[in-house]
Amino acid sequence: MAVTTRDRILDTTAELFRRYGYTGTGLKQIVAEAQAPFGSIYHHFPGGKEQLGQEVILRSGGMYQELFETILGASPDIVTGVRNLFEGAAELLRQTDYADACPIATVALEVANSNEPLRMATAEVFEGWIEAGAARFASAGVPGEKARDVAIVLITSLEGAFVLSRAMRDTEPVRVAGEATVVALRAALRDAA
Amino acid sequence: MAVTTRDRILDTTAELFRRYGYTGTGLKQIVAEAQAPFGSIYHHFPGGKEQLGQEVILRSGGMYQELFETILGASPDIVTGVRNLFEGAAELLRQTDYADACPIATVALEVANSNEPLRMATAEVFEGWIEAGAARFASAGVPGEKARDVAIVLITSLEGAFVLSRAMRDTEPVRVAGEATVVALRAALRDAA
Repeated sequence: MAVTTRDRILDTTAELFRRYGYTGTGLKQIVAEAQAPFGSIYHHFPGGKEQLGQEVILRSGGMYQELFETILGASPDIVTGVRNLFEGAAELLRQTDYADACPIATVALEVANSNEPLRMATAEVFEGWIEAGAARFASAGVPGEKARDVAIVLITSLEGAFVLSRAMRDTEPVRVAGEATVVALRAALRDAA
Repeated sequence: MAVTTRDRILDTTAELFRRYGYTGTGLKQIVAEAQAPFGSIYHHFPGGKEQLGQEVILRSGGMYQELFETILGASPDIVTGVRNLFEGAAELLRQTDYADACPIATVALEVANSNEPLRMATAEVFEGWIEAGAARFASAGVPGEKARDVAIVLITSLEGAFVLSRAMRDTEPVRVAGEATVVALRAALRDAA
């Protein structure tokens, strides 16, 4: 299937956000790297950088959610699934020279108090991840009221570990945060038993 | 004691970084808000924005470390101390309309792959926090090899919770991450007993 100009712009912008954030990514840089004519941005995204940012946040959020679901679904049990998630994240950090991690965290922190439409897009993604995680943990036997908490622990642990691991260029925080998430998940499963 | 122009510039820059990040904060904005003449930036920080950024990161990191030590030191026991840390963080988020949280996280994510001197400054702060936390947990009875892990869990939990809480404008992630940190701390103390 041919990749459209629109998709190329979205993919390139997502990649640039991961490396330079929202403020640090310019429209000229996007069209240059996407090999698209400058006018194509406003053709496909009449609202300019803000509309493009919103679509990238929601699209990247959806893609990462699918990736999470695939990893968890392919694992023999939920504890192994959570371990595999963190191991995959550590591997991705090493492979990308600590650039790729969460596609929306940098933007989320940048816009939290300066751009309300973009903040709402990041909130929508996080809420979607929490609900998907909660459903997954509930079906693995974690009681309903605890399932949401474990999902929040998983996502906050991963996000916080990305901050430290990228800064320190070391996967130790991802490894340790992964173990702590497994401890929280096991405690929730034990309470249920 | 009179606040010097240099300190006013550092304080203002730290505040702007928390709200707009490194890339989103301009030198003109800094001097305007600090009520300082434009030339004073290059007078006090000959390396310009990058030098100012480095000093703000290291200074803010040191100030937050002191705040953490004060809160933990004033608590009757280490578990209560950790609870108080997260409750204080949730209160700060509410009071500041979800603006103030970690003084260096936004910058850390922005510069991780784009500015090596600033990345190294953020890594130095995180490593300092981990070592201070590890020493504190060790003196509270957590075995040496586990003390560093618990410190990493505390900091990654707090950082990840800030990302979600600021985006969602809700302190739920900070509360849940705090409880998970307490679970990890208690497990480490139990292992020691």
